[in-house]
Amino acid sequence: MTEHALPAGYRFAAVASGIKKSNKLDMALIVSDSPAQCAGVFTRNRVIAAPLLVTRPRIATGQCQAILVNSGNANACTGAEGVAAAEQTVALTAAALAIDTDLVAVSSTGVIGVPLPLSPFERAISQLVAALCPDQAEAVARAMITTDAFTKIASAKEQGDNPYSILGLAKGAGMIHPDMATMLCFVLTDARIDSAFLQELLDSAVADSFNSITVDGDTSTNDTVLLLANGAAGGRLICPGSEEAAVFANHLNRVMLDLAKMIVSDGEGATKMVQIKVVGAKDAHAARIAARSVATSALVKTAFFGEDANWGRIIAAVGYSGIDLDQSCIDICFDHVPIVANGVAIGPDNEAQAGDILKKQNFVVTIDLHLGAGEASYYTSDLNYEYVKINASYRT
Amino acid sequence: MTEHALPAGYRFAAVASGIKKSNKLDMALIVSDSPAQCAGVFTRNRVIAAPLLVTRPRIATGQCQAILVNSGNANACTGAEGVAAAEQTVALTAAALAIDTDLVAVSSTGVIGVPLPLSPFERAISQLVAALCPDQAEAVARAMITTDAFTKIASAKEQGDNPYSILGLAKGAGMIHPDMATMLCFVLTDARIDSAFLQELLDSAVADSFNSITVDGDTSTNDTVLLLANGAAGGRLICPGSEEAAVFANHLNRVMLDLAKMIVSDGEGATKMVQIKVVGAKDAHAARIAARSVATSALVKTAFFGEDANWGRIIAAVGYSGIDLDQSCIDICFDHVPIVANGVAIGPDNEAQAGDILKKQNFVVTIDLHLGAGEASYYTSDLNYEYVKINASYRT
Repeated sequence: MTEHALPAGYRFAAVASGIKKSNKLDMALIVSDSPAQCAGVFTRNRVIAAPLLVTRPRIATGQCQAILVNSGNANACTGAEGVAAAEQTVALTAAALAIDTDLVAVSSTGVIGVPLPLSPFERAISQLVAALCPDQAEAVARAMITTDAFTKIASAKEQGDNPYSILGLAKGAGMIHPDMATMLCFVLTDARIDSAFLQELLDSAVADSFNSITVDGDTSTNDTVLLLANGAAGGRLICPGSEEAAVFANHLNRVMLDLAKMIVSDGEGATKMVQIKVVGAKDAHAARIAARSVATSALVKTAFFGEDANWGRIIAAVGYSGIDLDQSCIDICFDHVPIVANGVAIGPDNEAQAGDILKKQNFVVTIDLHLGAGEASYYTSDLNYEYVKINASYRT
Repeated sequence: MTEHALPAGYRFAAVASGIKKSNKLDMALIVSDSPAQCAGVFTRNRVIAAPLLVTRPRIATGQCQAILVNSGNANACTGAEGVAAAEQTVALTAAALAIDTDLVAVSSTGVIGVPLPLSPFERAISQLVAALCPDQAEAVARAMITTDAFTKIASAKEQGDNPYSILGLAKGAGMIHPDMATMLCFVLTDARIDSAFLQELLDSAVADSFNSITVDGDTSTNDTVLLLANGAAGGRLICPGSEEAAVFANHLNRVMLDLAKMIVSDGEGATKMVQIKVVGAKDAHAARIAARSVATSALVKTAFFGEDANWGRIIAAVGYSGIDLDQSCIDICFDHVPIVANGVAIGPDNEAQAGDILKKQNFVVTIDLHLGAGEASYYTSDLNYEYVKINASYRT
């Protein structure tokens, strides 16, 4: 953790509570010394897990002091009992910290449809409170993961005359795994920002990071992003429209894009992380639709795995995205190598060069529609045998 | 072919023209003795292959006498030269048959982005015309295929006092393979029906067959369905609203649904064909959206391969489809085995029984939303190693 900037005024703890049978870390607590301003973004899935139903109205108050997270059980599709269980974990945490229940957020990730057992919480929450200290953020990141191959931490440090740090912890192996309750992200800063502006900053950062990645297009019942700002750095209030706000937004966007890219790289079995960049669209919205269509195409993703510069699949995925286009104006490049001009193949030499680009672990596919100034990127992984293996055998 | 009903007044021929390097059948001709009434449905992809640009306006005239089809080259993303080449194949066919060029439809399927060579057509079309005979429909079906594991033929015979036959030939291994130009279907009948009504009947049959199947959600640049009615059975004109029309629609729908199911069964590497049936939706449109969302989920399809009764992925896919729902009202069955009631798991016994259903090659997943009378089905396959293998290595 020495390489990461740590915001002041936060403490962390993680334990193996027994929810995961493997006896790995599976429960964690993040506490701000004082109530922090907060913002949240939650899944747009219409099937919503119990912890989100409990946490969403709390975050809407604009204040939060503690986040309790568990892995191994998503507490999703668990009915009214699941909501009662989530409320109970809020109450246990608030009591152990001697703070108001309104200041406690809870998140769960793991298998869907299995009742959340309360006894691990009854045992572990007092242990967590006793263990809280400023340097255990990495243990929290470890306690959050499920099928992830690695923990995901990113940070930023502003060193001007109004200094602060931002620390992001994320969990997820792709925008995937509805039954593993996918993507959790907690971003902590000691900057001073009001909750309404914090929400604006978070919405914008999510659009360009977590909402611009795809592994298989599935969206979970538990996706949650929380942003806390406790002001413990002692700096000035950062206000909308100021230059300081733009600097903060840059830092926040970078931290969240870093985390999002880590999630794509950890896409189950992924061997490549590819940026699909659409330029020259009528507007940014159209660019986004086209980029997402290419990024989610199973045929495109399988071709990346096969290291095949199969631009026919890319152009077809742009075509069925539904946006306006003129097929005779489309150019496609793999990194710096043009492969399609005016909708037709440039030639075998370029295709051979593009084949070399595809052997890389990271590259950019640029699709120019020559219709306007709209631009957007999506980040995606390859689709391969490991993906099938992991997802065919997960529960069994 | 003895088991299939053959409509009167059609002749068929197929040859190995050399477009496919394997020297397999790759070009075929279907000719009606007299100009037939016709209807067509074409891809909704905005990137459209040359043969569709050439054939669509011809079909719009309501008359067609000959269909020339080749596999091995899709003539897609080939620019103005590709359109000129398609026009040239129309001209060659019309000249060899001594009919008007407006009566000739052309279809191509194969690799995208490679110029269509004309010399195979110059050599083969006169051979095809010389070889035309009524009993070669199966050879035509064979000449249409690309990665298909088997040819697809279905038929129906009406034996009342206005008898006729319907014969359908299809090509495609899923709604897939943009670079292999996917799905072609030619349906021939000797019933007597006007082209405007024929188009209505075809639109409706396509909605419940080819537009209700998915292997990976990709849509090709070349998808084409043509329906010809030459009246050669000598029967009465079948008019809209009549009982005869309803009988014909039933026959047509069954033939096309049979072909669509064959395409799903042949989904690349598919080992299972699963019907996703949504009932109790607000309306049929909402049911269709939800069924499609489940049918196209890579996680659901991978779970089918793993024979895992993973209802969490199914309910999550319904949730992110975007339709209105109340998660506490959702029931799910695998065939006759209920597994979820009111949005929560029924229990381990039912899950074990559902696991047995999943071992079958064909089964039905019924999702009841308890919101209304809307109902729709989608047909899908499992996602497995073979799919990845076929699609990662296809061009190389």
